[in-house]
Order: sequence, then structure tokens, then C-alpha cells
Amino acid sequence: MKKVLLNEEELPKKWYNVLPDLPEPVPPPINPATKQPVNPEDLKAIFSEECIEQEISDKRFIDIPEEVRKVYAMWRPTPLVRAENLEKAIGSKAKIFYKNESVSPPGSHKPNTAVAQVYYNKREGINKLVTETGAGQWGSALSFAGAQFGAEVKVYMVRASYDQKPYRKSLMEAWGGKCFSSPTDLTEIGRKIRKEFPDTSGSLGIAISEAVEDAITHKDTKYAIGSVSNHVLLHQTVIGLEVEKQLADIDIKPTIMIGCVGGGSNFGGFFLPFLPRKLNGENIRFIAVEPKACPTLTKGLYKYDYGDTGKVTPLFKMYTLGSSFVPPAIHAGGLRYHGDSPILSLLKKLNLIEAQAYYQREVFEAGVLFARTEGILPAPETNHAIKAAIEEAKKATKDDVIVFNFSGHGHFDLAAYDAYFRGELQDYAYPEKDILKAIENLPEV
Amino acid sequence: MKKVLLNEEELPKKWYNVLPDLPEPVPPPINPATKQPVNPEDLKAIFSEECIEQEISDKRFIDIPEEVRKVYAMWRPTPLVRAENLEKAIGSKAKIFYKNESVSPPGSHKPNTAVAQVYYNKREGINKLVTETGAGQWGSALSFAGAQFGAEVKVYMVRASYDQKPYRKSLMEAWGGKCFSSPTDLTEIGRKIRKEFPDTSGSLGIAISEAVEDAITHKDTKYAIGSVSNHVLLHQTVIGLEVEKQLADIDIKPTIMIGCVGGGSNFGGFFLPFLPRKLNGENIRFIAVEPKACPTLTKGLYKYDYGDTGKVTPLFKMYTLGSSFVPPAIHAGGLRYHGDSPILSLLKKLNLIEAQAYYQREVFEAGVLFARTEGILPAPETNHAIKAAIEEAKKATKDDVIVFNFSGHGHFDLAAYDAYFRGELQDYAYPEKDILKAIENLPEV
Repeated sequence: MKKVLLNEEELPKKWYNVLPDLPEPVPPPINPATKQPVNPEDLKAIFSEECIEQEISDKRFIDIPEEVRKVYAMWRPTPLVRAENLEKAIGSKAKIFYKNESVSPPGSHKPNTAVAQVYYNKREGINKLVTETGAGQWGSALSFAGAQFGAEVKVYMVRASYDQKPYRKSLMEAWGGKCFSSPTDLTEIGRKIRKEFPDTSGSLGIAISEAVEDAITHKDTKYAIGSVSNHVLLHQTVIGLEVEKQLADIDIKPTIMIGCVGGGSNFGGFFLPFLPRKLNGENIRFIAVEPKACPTLTKGLYKYDYGDTGKVTPLFKMYTLGSSFVPPAIHAGGLRYHGDSPILSLLKKLNLIEAQAYYQREVFEAGVLFARTEGILPAPETNHAIKAAIEEAKKATKDDVIVFNFSGHGHFDLAAYDAYFRGELQDYAYPEKDILKAIENLPEV
Repeated sequence: MKKVLLNEEELPKKWYNVLPDLPEPVPPPINPATKQPVNPEDLKAIFSEECIEQEISDKRFIDIPEEVRKVYAMWRPTPLVRAENLEKAIGSKAKIFYKNESVSPPGSHKPNTAVAQVYYNKREGINKLVTETGAGQWGSALSFAGAQFGAEVKVYMVRASYDQKPYRKSLMEAWGGKCFSSPTDLTEIGRKIRKEFPDTSGSLGIAISEAVEDAITHKDTKYAIGSVSNHVLLHQTVIGLEVEKQLADIDIKPTIMIGCVGGGSNFGGFFLPFLPRKLNGENIRFIAVEPKACPTLTKGLYKYDYGDTGKVTPLFKMYTLGSSFVPPAIHAGGLRYHGDSPILSLLKKLNLIEAQAYYQREVFEAGVLFARTEGILPAPETNHAIKAAIEEAKKATKDDVIVFNFSGHGHFDLAAYDAYFRGELQDYAYPEKDILKAIENLPEV
């Protein structure tokens, strides 16, 4: 077991912004009414000014504010770990490393951007943040960040999850976050949906619509976003920049970098700092891993689509399964998004990243093997990255160095493991019919 | 936020054995049938030979085997953290530090001894370990350790907890542990109790009896113990030895050291390496913290008593509330033990350690303040140490240095936090009547 640690002073001082290094520009978000690119001014009702600037910045490196670094230092730099026990168990010729992002207080990479977003809003005089959450990881991370800067955090949590996962709500509450079962009576869209569909179990689309309406209708409130956006991936590059330093410290070059992908922020933050190496012709592969039940990058179309089911967001050019697509209820809730980050989507289109999809049971099998060898119980999302790392290791040579991002632990996902051990987990078939139907309705641009 | 980190090479190479440094010997365990000290030979059916030797060793330092250090290195050395945010929030003049033992894969200090016990048994040819567990922390830690050395782990889990906390069972299962609802049909005593009391919800006393019977009746199986015993406290001194090095690195001397106490292993392992300082006249206080609902050190008697309710263990000289005492159902399950480590009990008797007791709600209030300032959600047991640290900080001067052991995180205790936030937690009064009744029946020695 070899951990590569950095000291607090080695915590990156800047994030890496990939935008100026991309071979072609990311297509801009489109206003669905005018069919014109969204004016950054229009976003000021929702996002902090600093985040809007970062969204389109052409600066290669952007300073991490000292106040943000101070909070990062509670758990960062995170360890890079040689997975020797796993290597032995699967007879890997290649070296396998994982970057352990599960050591943050909320247990995942999510606070890397939550802390930054809360900080910028506070600095601009905004004391109230709203967001939506599905499984609860993002709502927890934002509540944690709110507690650090004394900002109020309000979370619209999909009703089905709110009822099934009361502990996630308690975790948000422990950090002072206020969590509501969406649809609520607090917004117009919420009231409308409750009236029309009193028995609805809610959806991420509805919860996003509620959170955005809340921000638009309250001048003292802004919206925080957990993935997809360029500035979110920017904040997450603290992960990859640390990995770069850690691998350099032991004089090792990665040949395969792997991460699971829902909206794309943990994988993006992890590998984007290494993209220039590939553009310079180095031998390095980037593999995005997703569930077969929601195969955005492997089966989706590269088209403009809404970011949410409720069609309140702009249109983004991305791989999408259609914003009306509802994926099967797999336990990796963080990977059940119909679209993907525009940056990752462009890189996939340009064949600079690869994508793989796996079934639910085989990724849990990989996760249990990881727990028994490397000790840590992974989140169901993270199990996807582990599965791909194992499959790549089987084909790799002794010159290969596989590095994957261990995005979060599974302490709040034991119901899923319980179902797996009882043989009750299903392998949902690739939902081709539903996807074809949802893709039919993509908006014209 | 200042973390004091050690590198992997600084992980202690030896444990500290306090026995030769004690002002008087720990009274030996007594065989209740013969009223004579237990013969170490008699323990060989239950414990590994190495652990039996360590139980009575007069060597001041005992080598940590390389194989054990290798597993420790998965999460050790653990951070020592300056709790600056907490200091500010309570206006502390004193410095406050905490040793973060929650970073282990099972989330507490427990694997420090689980790993050692499994290793020694494997080395002596024993491939099967049994134990009991109440809330599940110890069963999880032993399952984790079993997975690391390829040993089978069988856990008798109190039926009430087994039914109420299915996720703890899933966690053990993730590491390959087999967990049974006690009383089971697997042991004679289990079958007897199920016949007499088919509706019993089980008890730790019954589960201990089942595990010990299992070990005694199977030559290939031994018993692993989670606290109380001298060799368990020995293995836990890796905590205090790291703290010693970490404080020396920043040139700071502790004046107040605090830990919560159930059986005494996290607190013992944390402060015992500092005991010689007190014996040499240095200004340093050691504070054991317990629940008012189970006030062993603050209200118990220093007498010989059984280690379990079922009266299958030897008699130990310890502070006890009587082995028939059943404490109220507080959420800090790890602190619901009627007795205490004989080493800690002797030190309390000699006034070398102090003891404090708190109510349930005030310790949760302290835990929530900790989560909102320092970020990490503490286990209910750990909340006791935090509460005492805050109270001491209020009385302390700027020359004081308070260090407490952060024994575990609360990721598996969110039901308790949920009850706290809903105002449903009770402050159980000091159960004087029950204690007096249980103490009446102490065995004659």
C-alpha cells in the first residue's frame, strides 16, 4: 500500500481552465426562445458574476481564492493510492492508482465546487443559495459549504428520494441546510404540479425548475449547480492538478485515466489537466464510464437539448438521450442524467475521450472486490470507474499506469449493497425504445 | 485549519504497554468458580497466544508486526487537526486539537486492534474469528480486518440492532463477514434462550456468550474482543504515540486530554502514552467522558464483576454498575457498557484520571456545532468527547492545550441525528434505582 501524499502548502493555488486549450470552441448555450446564444447578462439573476465570467474565460489558469483554499485544506490535498491489493487480486500487470476524493466531509468530490460557488456568492453579497438534489450528494455538499461561510442553503430534494433517504436530509440539516420535498408549495411551478399531479414522486427536472424559479424570484438568492457547467469542471480540476503533482513526485506517467460520468464533473476535473499531453501526442487514454441504463456518451446524439426535463434551462450542445428520457431506477443516482457536460461532449465528438457502459450488477461486483482488497466501500457511481479500471488492467501491459478517480464512498448507499447481496439488483437492459422516443422530440435549433 | 500530518515512515513501529509504568499492578482477572486468578493457559481456547502474552507483558514497548503496519498504512498515520473554527465559535482562549480516528475504512479507531488480533490468530494457524457486536462498529472493524488477511469472520449481532440497523450487516457483508441475529440456533446457549424466550430482542450479554461458546467448541475458531482488555488498549496506543510525535513536531505540550469511554479502548489508546508525564509531575489532566445514562466511572463501584450479563467471563476488578444493569437505549451504543477497562479503572481509583458524565441532548448539540464548524459529522459516542472539550475550553486559559480523540464519524448514525433534529431525543435521568439493584448482586470474591 503506497499513498502519495502532498502537504497543505502543495494544495494547488490555481484551477486549470481547459477552454483556451480545446481544439475548437465549446458551442455556446442557446436561448430556446430567440435561438440566439445566451447573453451572459441574462445569467446574473441565477449565478454569481465570478462564475459567469469563469464559464467563458480564456485564461488558462484561474486563482483559487485563499478563503476557498482554507476550506479545501480541511480534507485536501487528497491521497493518491497505489491499489496494490487490487492489482494482486486480479493479477494486473499494470500499476493501478486511485485518487481518493471520498475523504471530504460530505464524502465525495462535490464540495470542490460547492465551496467555491458559496464563497463567490457571499463575496458578491448573496447570503442565500438554492439548489436541487436527487440522491442527496450535491445537496449535502452545498449545505456543508454553506456552514463554512455562514450562508443559508435551501435544497429542493426529489420527493421519492426525500421519502426513501431520510438520512441524507438529516446530513444536510446537520450542516444547517434546509431540505424540502419537491414539488413544494414554495414555488409557482411546484404548486401547479402538486395541483395537477398530487401523487407525483417528483423528478430532478421539477426540482431544478423549482430551484431556478426560487433564485429568479428572490433578489437575495442565487442558484448553485452541481455538475455539467464549465465553471463546475474548472473548480474540480483541483483533483487532476493534485494527481499531476503526485505522479510527478514518484516519477510516473499515466497511460489510462478513468472516471465515472453523470454530468461529467468528477471525471472532467480529474483528467482535463492531462488533456494537453494527449494534444501534444503523448500516449494517454481518457475513459468515461456510464451505466448501460443511461448510456449518454455511448448511445446518445450530439445535439442541442434542454438541461432539464421541465425545459426551463437554455439549450446545450451535448450528448443527450433526450430531456424527456427517464432512466431506470439504478442505484448510481448520480449517473442518471440524460445529458452531459458540453466540454466532455465536445471531446467525445473529437475522439479525444472514450466511453464505456456497464450493467449494474457487474459494477457492484467490482465495488465489493475493491472493498475487500483496498478497504474502502465505494459509492455505486464510483463502482463504474472501478469496473472499467479492472477491465482495462486485464488487457494492459506492465508499462501501463491506470489511474482512476475514486469519486465518493458508499456509506450512504448501503441499501443498494443490501439489495445486491440479497440478489435483488436488476441489470436493466439498454432502454433503446425510450431513448428513441425521447430523442425524437429534440428541439430544433 | 492546521492539520499536523505524519508520513507513512513515521507510523509507530512499537505499541506502548503501560503495565510496567503503573504505580501498582492491575488486579488480575479471577475465575468465579475457584476464586483464584485466571491461569493464562485457560485462555488459550479463546484468545491467540500472542494476545494472552501481551495481556500480562512487562515489556514497555512491543513491536508492531510489519504485516499489521502495512494494513495500518491504508489510513494511518491519522491527522491531528487544530479545531480553529470550533475555537472561534465558542470563543476559546485555549488551543483545541483533535486526533481524527474516523478516517479508517470502518470509520473508527476499532480496526487498530482488529487488524492486530486477526493477524496474530492467522499467524498461529487460526483462520476463523468470532465476536459479538451491539451497534455494529466492532463487527464491521473485525470484518474489514478479516478481509485483509483472508480470515473468516462470524459476528453475533444483538437481534434488536440486527433488525433496526440492516446497513451495518451489509457493511460487514461487503467485507466478507457473516453476521447472525443473536440469539441464534448455532449455539447451545442461543437455542436455550430462543426456546425459553422466543420473542427476546437479544442483548450484548447473550451475544458474548454465543461468541465465546462458538470459540470454545470449535478448535479452529478463536474469539476477538473489541475493548476492555489490556492487549486491546495496547494496540490502540498507536493513536497516542502518533499524537505525541505530532505535538512534538509543532512544539506543543497538551494540558488536557479527553476521550469518550465505553469499555475504554479509544481513550486508553489515546492518553496512556502520556501517563508517564503525569507520573513525573507534569501539568496534564486526563478526562474520561461517559453518558449520564451509563455512568460507570462517575457512579459505579470499584469491585470485581463479570464482564458480561450472561456471567460466562472471568471476574474483572473494575468500576461497574453491575453486570445485570441494562442502561437506557441511548444512541451512543458504544458507551452502554456496565463495566470498564481494568487499567482505566485502576487509574481512576488512583485519581490519575478524571471522569465526567453528560446527558444525551447536550452531547448531540455539541456534535452539531462540531459538524457546522469543523465539517465532520461525529459519531454519538464521539460527541461526548466534544462536549467535554467545549466545557473545558470555556474554563481554560490561553496556556491550555486541549486535545481530544475523535473516535469515529456518524455516517451510520443518522437515525440518531434525525431523532435529535425532530426533538425526539430523551435525556435519560441517571438510573440510580436500577444501578443500586444491579450493584446489590455483585459476586463475592
